[in-house]
Amino acid sequence: MKIGIFTVLYDDKPLDDVLKYIAKLGYEAVELGAWKGSHHLNIEEIVKGGATKYKKSIQKHGLTISALSNHLEGQLVLGPHDVSTDDWCKGTPEEKIRYGTERMKLTAQAAAALDVQVVCGFVGSPYWGAWYIFPPAYEKVYEEGFKQLGERWGEILDAFASQGVKFAHEVHPQEHAYNVETAENAVKALDGRKESGFNFDPSHLLWQSIDPVVFIKRFGDRIYHMHAKDSELVKENLASSGCIPTGSWRRPDRGFRFRVPGWGDVPWRRVMTALLEVGYDYVMSYEHEDPVMSREDGCEKCIQFLKPLIIKKPLEKVWW
Amino acid sequence: MKIGIFTVLYDDKPLDDVLKYIAKLGYEAVELGAWKGSHHLNIEEIVKGGATKYKKSIQKHGLTISALSNHLEGQLVLGPHDVSTDDWCKGTPEEKIRYGTERMKLTAQAAAALDVQVVCGFVGSPYWGAWYIFPPAYEKVYEEGFKQLGERWGEILDAFASQGVKFAHEVHPQEHAYNVETAENAVKALDGRKESGFNFDPSHLLWQSIDPVVFIKRFGDRIYHMHAKDSELVKENLASSGCIPTGSWRRPDRGFRFRVPGWGDVPWRRVMTALLEVGYDYVMSYEHEDPVMSREDGCEKCIQFLKPLIIKKPLEKVWW
Amino acid sequence: MKIGIFTVLYDDKPLDDVLKYIAKLGYEAVELGAWKGSHHLNIEEIVKGGATKYKKSIQKHGLTISALSNHLEGQLVLGPHDVSTDDWCKGTPEEKIRYGTERMKLTAQAAAALDVQVVCGFVGSPYWGAWYIFPPAYEKVYEEGFKQLGERWGEILDAFASQGVKFAHEVHPQEHAYNVETAENAVKALDGRKESGFNFDPSHLLWQSIDPVVFIKRFGDRIYHMHAKDSELVKENLASSGCIPTGSWRRPDRGFRFRVPGWGDVPWRRVMTALLEVGYDYVMSYEHEDPVMSREDGCEKCIQFLKPLIIKKPLEKVWW
Amino acid sequence: MKIGIFTVLYDDKPLDDVLKYIAKLGYEAVELGAWKGSHHLNIEEIVKGGATKYKKSIQKHGLTISALSNHLEGQLVLGPHDVSTDDWCKGTPEEKIRYGTERMKLTAQAAAALDVQVVCGFVGSPYWGAWYIFPPAYEKVYEEGFKQLGERWGEILDAFASQGVKFAHEVHPQEHAYNVETAENAVKALDGRKESGFNFDPSHLLWQSIDPVVFIKRFGDRIYHMHAKDSELVKENLASSGCIPTGSWRRPDRGFRFRVPGWGDVPWRRVMTALLEVGYDYVMSYEHEDPVMSREDGCEKCIQFLKPLIIKKPLEKVWW
Amino acid sequence: MKIGIFTVLYDDKPLDDVLKYIAKLGYEAVELGAWKGSHHLNIEEIVKGGATKYKKSIQKHGLTISALSNHLEGQLVLGPHDVSTDDWCKGTPEEKIRYGTERMKLTAQAAAALDVQVVCGFVGSPYWGAWYIFPPAYEKVYEEGFKQLGERWGEILDAFASQGVKFAHEVHPQEHAYNVETAENAVKALDGRKESGFNFDPSHLLWQSIDPVVFIKRFGDRIYHMHAKDSELVKENLASSGCIPTGSWRRPDRGFRFRVPGWGDVPWRRVMTALLEVGYDYVMSYEHEDPVMSREDGCEKCIQFLKPLIIKKPLEKVWW
Amino acid sequence: MKIGIFTVLYDDKPLDDVLKYIAKLGYEAVELGAWKGSHHLNIEEIVKGGATKYKKSIQKHGLTISALSNHLEGQLVLGPHDVSTDDWCKGTPEEKIRYGTERMKLTAQAAAALDVQVVCGFVGSPYWGAWYIFPPAYEKVYEEGFKQLGERWGEILDAFASQGVKFAHEVHPQEHAYNVETAENAVKALDGRKESGFNFDPSHLLWQSIDPVVFIKRFGDRIYHMHAKDSELVKENLASSGCIPTGSWRRPDRGFRFRVPGWGDVPWRRVMTALLEVGYDYVMSYEHEDPVMSREDGCEKCIQFLKPLIIKKPLEKVWW
Repeated sequence: MKIGIFTVLYDDKPLDDVLKYIAKLGYEAVELGAWKGSHHLNIEEIVKGGATKYKKSIQKHGLTISALSNHLEGQLVLGPHDVSTDDWCKGTPEEKIRYGTERMKLTAQAAAALDVQVVCGFVGSPYWGAWYIFPPAYEKVYEEGFKQLGERWGEILDAFASQGVKFAHEVHPQEHAYNVETAENAVKALDGRKESGFNFDPSHLLWQSIDPVVFIKRFGDRIYHMHAKDSELVKENLASSGCIPTGSWRRPDRGFRFRVPGWGDVPWRRVMTALLEVGYDYVMSYEHEDPVMSREDGCEKCIQFLKPLIIKKPLEKVWW
Repeated sequence: MKIGIFTVLYDDKPLDDVLKYIAKLGYEAVELGAWKGSHHLNIEEIVKGGATKYKKSIQKHGLTISALSNHLEGQLVLGPHDVSTDDWCKGTPEEKIRYGTERMKLTAQAAAALDVQVVCGFVGSPYWGAWYIFPPAYEKVYEEGFKQLGERWGEILDAFASQGVKFAHEVHPQEHAYNVETAENAVKALDGRKESGFNFDPSHLLWQSIDPVVFIKRFGDRIYHMHAKDSELVKENLASSGCIPTGSWRRPDRGFRFRVPGWGDVPWRRVMTALLEVGYDYVMSYEHEDPVMSREDGCEKCIQFLKPLIIKKPLEKVWW
Repeated sequence: MKIGIFTVLYDDKPLDDVLKYIAKLGYEAVELGAWKGSHHLNIEEIVKGGATKYKKSIQKHGLTISALSNHLEGQLVLGPHDVSTDDWCKGTPEEKIRYGTERMKLTAQAAAALDVQVVCGFVGSPYWGAWYIFPPAYEKVYEEGFKQLGERWGEILDAFASQGVKFAHEVHPQEHAYNVETAENAVKALDGRKESGFNFDPSHLLWQSIDPVVFIKRFGDRIYHMHAKDSELVKENLASSGCIPTGSWRRPDRGFRFRVPGWGDVPWRRVMTALLEVGYDYVMSYEHEDPVMSREDGCEKCIQFLKPLIIKKPLEKVWW
Repeated sequence: MKIGIFTVLYDDKPLDDVLKYIAKLGYEAVELGAWKGSHHLNIEEIVKGGATKYKKSIQKHGLTISALSNHLEGQLVLGPHDVSTDDWCKGTPEEKIRYGTERMKLTAQAAAALDVQVVCGFVGSPYWGAWYIFPPAYEKVYEEGFKQLGERWGEILDAFASQGVKFAHEVHPQEHAYNVETAENAVKALDGRKESGFNFDPSHLLWQSIDPVVFIKRFGDRIYHMHAKDSELVKENLASSGCIPTGSWRRPDRGFRFRVPGWGDVPWRRVMTALLEVGYDYVMSYEHEDPVMSREDGCEKCIQFLKPLIIKKPLEKVWW
Repeated sequence: MKIGIFTVLYDDKPLDDVLKYIAKLGYEAVELGAWKGSHHLNIEEIVKGGATKYKKSIQKHGLTISALSNHLEGQLVLGPHDVSTDDWCKGTPEEKIRYGTERMKLTAQAAAALDVQVVCGFVGSPYWGAWYIFPPAYEKVYEEGFKQLGERWGEILDAFASQGVKFAHEVHPQEHAYNVETAENAVKALDGRKESGFNFDPSHLLWQSIDPVVFIKRFGDRIYHMHAKDSELVKENLASSGCIPTGSWRRPDRGFRFRVPGWGDVPWRRVMTALLEVGYDYVMSYEHEDPVMSREDGCEKCIQFLKPLIIKKPLEKVWW
Repeated sequence: MKIGIFTVLYDDKPLDDVLKYIAKLGYEAVELGAWKGSHHLNIEEIVKGGATKYKKSIQKHGLTISALSNHLEGQLVLGPHDVSTDDWCKGTPEEKIRYGTERMKLTAQAAAALDVQVVCGFVGSPYWGAWYIFPPAYEKVYEEGFKQLGERWGEILDAFASQGVKFAHEVHPQEHAYNVETAENAVKALDGRKESGFNFDPSHLLWQSIDPVVFIKRFGDRIYHMHAKDSELVKENLASSGCIPTGSWRRPDRGFRFRVPGWGDVPWRRVMTALLEVGYDYVMSYEHEDPVMSREDGCEKCIQFLKPLIIKKPLEKVWW
């Protein structure tokens, strides 16, 4: 198991500086943002022969790329197709879908060119708020979302298959698969095809009261990538703000917020144990979305916390 | 404090039969559904002089009307204006808004005609799923919903004011005010006008990890009505299904479901105490949405459970 | 659902007196001890034509027989075949097995004669202590017990099948099937045959930290009978005595003890809900093994506690 | 076990009216305030031959006297001898001590005259705040308080002994014996003499995080009387106000307050069980100090809650 | 944020040796005891020109002085004026008050001379035990204590103001401000003047069930200094000894005791986060009062535990 | 306090290699398996003069021997004498007893020859499953086991006494003394003789809900040795599998399993504190029985976790 980092937190700094900094801290892999506008990766350049330069640059620092990530453009595939996604593609729903689809295919091509096996991202959701079944018509509406998921992502996954690249959906609010049950539905909607798996991120399950270990044991070998991120049900605020607050991430009175690993409520030793049990032995990619502490604090504290928790090997046999 | 009942659970039976049945069980008040299609109340008839007949019918059974309720048509005011509300009004968003607005005004008129001081309902929400602030643009989107709330409901509340009737919004998912914080925002958006208050229902707060007592103490004299409903974080399912499951209300593996009072996790003695402390002395209106037990079981168990918990009076003075 | 009682607690009193007493308290069914020496039932007499007298006696009090119970002689089938079972049958292991087997068959005959569909009991265990896998050889030893279970009880169940009677094993320490997992193994060992099911008793699961609701949902329609019994992890003693204390049931410093329903830690409302969900609609048979309070206290308190918790019917449909 | 009531809550009403009211509610015993100024008992009259009239009055309502209580004048024995006790006796410390001592002796005489075996009360404390050992000199100061306790109460208990009456100290803040440990010290300071025991009141132990059952099991046959009172760590306030708030008992933001039995955190079933185990079979005397609900609410709710929890007899023997 | 140490634990060793030892362990600041008899600081000498020597001595070890502390003489200002404070000043209450007042003013002068901005201490309390409102007269008595606080400390704070030094009261039992609510009252009693703030020490709040984070968020910029100290509700003793035990700090059966940071129940990560949120960026001063482990163990374990928990900077902005 | 290791985990590797490896990791002591077949110790050789070679080999690595351990042959003394112990001694019960007894005496001799003061082991149990008192005859059966314990181990302890060696029984399921209460019975059965004490291992108490600190405080100076082992009530499995699952130690769905220290539920800081309080200052011997992680992971993680938790000395005196 390696500890990597999702470099988007330093998208305002040159990639090479970022690589140097994080390699020195002990990180061994990077996850790179593949959406248009990412300052760390231009997938159009990559597929036009620019991969070698990138690979060298990464190798120079003794790092590997754990995944390309394209959460933003993946979201366009199922939506929402309202104003909230205009920053990423302004247009009609059809245009947004088409654009998102093409960009995801391109991301797979770029991954292949970079010898990266996994693309992380979001599948999107036509209307996520419909998960709460009221008005009653939403029960059918939500179910139909899975059909669209099967169709639109089926097409994209064909492209992934032809590139030998896997797609790892991040189970997350605003996505049609946002908990264990809907993740199972998504797997079914895609006929269980092996290109489709998950980017496991415990921070999104915890505030739902879902035990992340249950997720790991349920999906086992479909976990293709993971985010090392924690989240906190903020004890002094929970009884008044609850676990699903809205508004700015920095509000000091929110009942829930993301945290650097070790600073929230994720049971990391149980998570590490379960990952070992299901045989996940790839990369834990640190994602900084802690609304309290600085990026440098996060980068230092994350690796300091997680490194001693890595288990190298399972037990060989029982002798007692 | 009286124990009443929201008669919608028996909308398939004649009102008079229902009144007879529930009066015999000890209920003392009814809350009547005012939307078009309700079999227990036709507000158009009422405002055309039909109130007396209703009043007599209610009085005959020794009952009072605690509130008219129009959750469905209230929802149309802010939305969603998609297919989910077509059963209540098929049309363009503008048509839905206009229709919802008129129906709510009519409901206030009907309430006045029936000498009922409170109308319960939902304010609606343009896109409730936007509460989760991703994509980032949703922060602004959600905030703007409060402006619409102020404008559209401001107009409706003028009509309420002229009738001397109060509106009690039920804090609930799919509504723009769904927790303590957004309820405070809604109060502000309506300039704190006194026609606007709440229909307190602890079942919607509990699964959010919000302490219902905090709600009561925060809003005190703005609680104009309440629903006696319980909810359960289903222990054997919670770790896998979580507190925000989707799909059919009857799924046996849901992590959360509504229950008859006393069968869920609402701390009723603390709730009764807090209601006494803030001076709420009106009606607890039983709403049956328990996906497990029958309506008869619910009607009998609810009153059997709540009756002994009613506190008649606050303490006169401390002598110790 | 009826509330019944296992009359063994008053085995020192004439059955007719007991029936009169408990019928007056509101109990509607009885479970009768069928082992040799039971003062309330002589199965040898029954199968020789004595059933009618019994049936009349029961009917006279407006009662039904929920089950015959033969825990003691069932235990002989798998053992232990040491001194501990000499009170029930003194002899070699083979003699004990033969005797236990014959008595269980006779019990099924008696049940049929009395028009009773269920016999409750214990399957026994060759060496229950072997559940803790040390010495290591015990892993195989425990597994082999299930083979014996399949063979010996297979033979007995053939006799049950021919009588149209079902056997309900009580999952309990000292029995080869003592928790959820071993109960599943027992079902498998008997090829899932329908004569074999369970006498659900939450008191034996609770101190193991097993959620009784999980048992109910796992076995559903194999629950043929149930005991209404509670158990208590005694808070003031638990940290020093633990959940598996030995010695006299009356020791005041035990960390665990049985209790009258409502006086222990069984989550009864959740249990009642789950029984409704799986469709169990037969009898809750009260078993008094509370080492603290008298039999009369128990009989009165049990029915007073459980009666209001009975749910008559499931919900017809969802309308909200 | 009987349920009684401490009539001080209705000291503003004639005793006979109170007796009539509470007897009708089902109470079977009364505890009467014996301090000067009590409107329900004048101990000077009693010892001068007035006992018969009182006894008849009590008997007329089918009641007994469980205890005389003289908390106020008992407090004077050890203090505090500052302004706080001026309402009960204005004078020098020596005068307060002498007066308190005489009044307690007189209370014992009155109890004997009324055939009452128990006097409840407080022992007082020279400076209770000294329990927190800072400044360091307070360790010795607090210890010395036990010497005074031994001396002053030793003298009083001689008078009790000569009357055949027992003294039941209520373990309570502001008393030198306020928790399990200091109660043990008090027993030692009085050489374990049998006139000295306790008026068990779980409400004072609970907010200290002491398990009331531990108290019962520790002191067993020294529990001569008990108060049925509950207390609540007020969940919505605890994290900010804590368990030892000061100021008015009616402050709605206190972290702790007294409650009517069943409305606080006392584990009543465990308490009833432990009382049975140690053989306490006298009176549970309801004391109303709930700062929220009215006296009538309290009187009705207390007996409604406690009556079904009374266990009549211990188990005769184990047969299973 | 720096980690410092309150040197009183080594008052039996020369200051220079102590400075050397703790600097080597990584401590960066010291808090020095200013009371008469402190072997580490003689404030009379300081104000007579002795400051330079001290400052050099501190600087030599690369340290700073975070605060002067004068808990003992501050206590004299409000009391108790009984035997417990005779070790610090033997005399009449008036003499004690006068002496305490002068010593506190002198401490402020000494702080100014040493360029130290903060003096920590206790405000005292005339009769702390009066917080429990019984006898009822104590409600008024406790309130009046705040008036005395305003008067006596107002005078002292004038002297602080003229020296440009702030006073940080430690919220603590035996002090008139001992919890969140009384701390608020103290702020009011001093008209909110800015010289008056707090020495935040979570160990005194925890056993009261107060969340230290609530204190931090409530007082924010009035936290002028803090003690790094932990406390433990001793699980094996709590149910019998409770959270407010008296007697020797070393009793092994106490329900509560102080501990070295990381060895008690203080939620340090939440505390560090809240300190960052309110902008506290000064010194965490380690105070050793662990009755179990040695001073050396404490000094080593404290810094080893706290150092990795220091957060350097808040997050710059949200980008996700 | 030293951290040692029980070398049985590497019984498949030459002792010298093991010593080298663990010394390098920082371990300071070893516990060696003394049963026949142990590859790390041949006690027959030792008592015939082979001790010096061993001692030198240990010293060469800077290590000491904390104890010889002979759990397997100790088990033979009380049993079980069935097939489960045939691997250690095939024979009649009498032969097993005789063999076990002789081997334990020999182990004591070997310990003396090696200057080792402690032998760890199991006392065995004739039929451990009898702890659950059903059939009722088991109450007497279990009690009689203590008589056998007194007799058979009395004889062995005579041999220990003559060698100046102590025996430390490991409180463990399958042993007649398996919890606090039965450990007390065992002490009594051996007349409290000082050769008999315990090998404290918290992992066996935890799943019984026994607080390991209670064990430490109860037995204090009878703790002659300890195992550093953790255990985990596996949260995602507990409600279905319970705390006493049977079957393979590696089953991923077990409700309980052993773990490396720091990876289970043992409250280590409380354990370390209690050990200091009772004056245990010998060796914590790491035993690897974690069914998940490799031996190397365990060896590294254990010392990394425990080293910083060692407290060197108790506090000298209280000064505050």
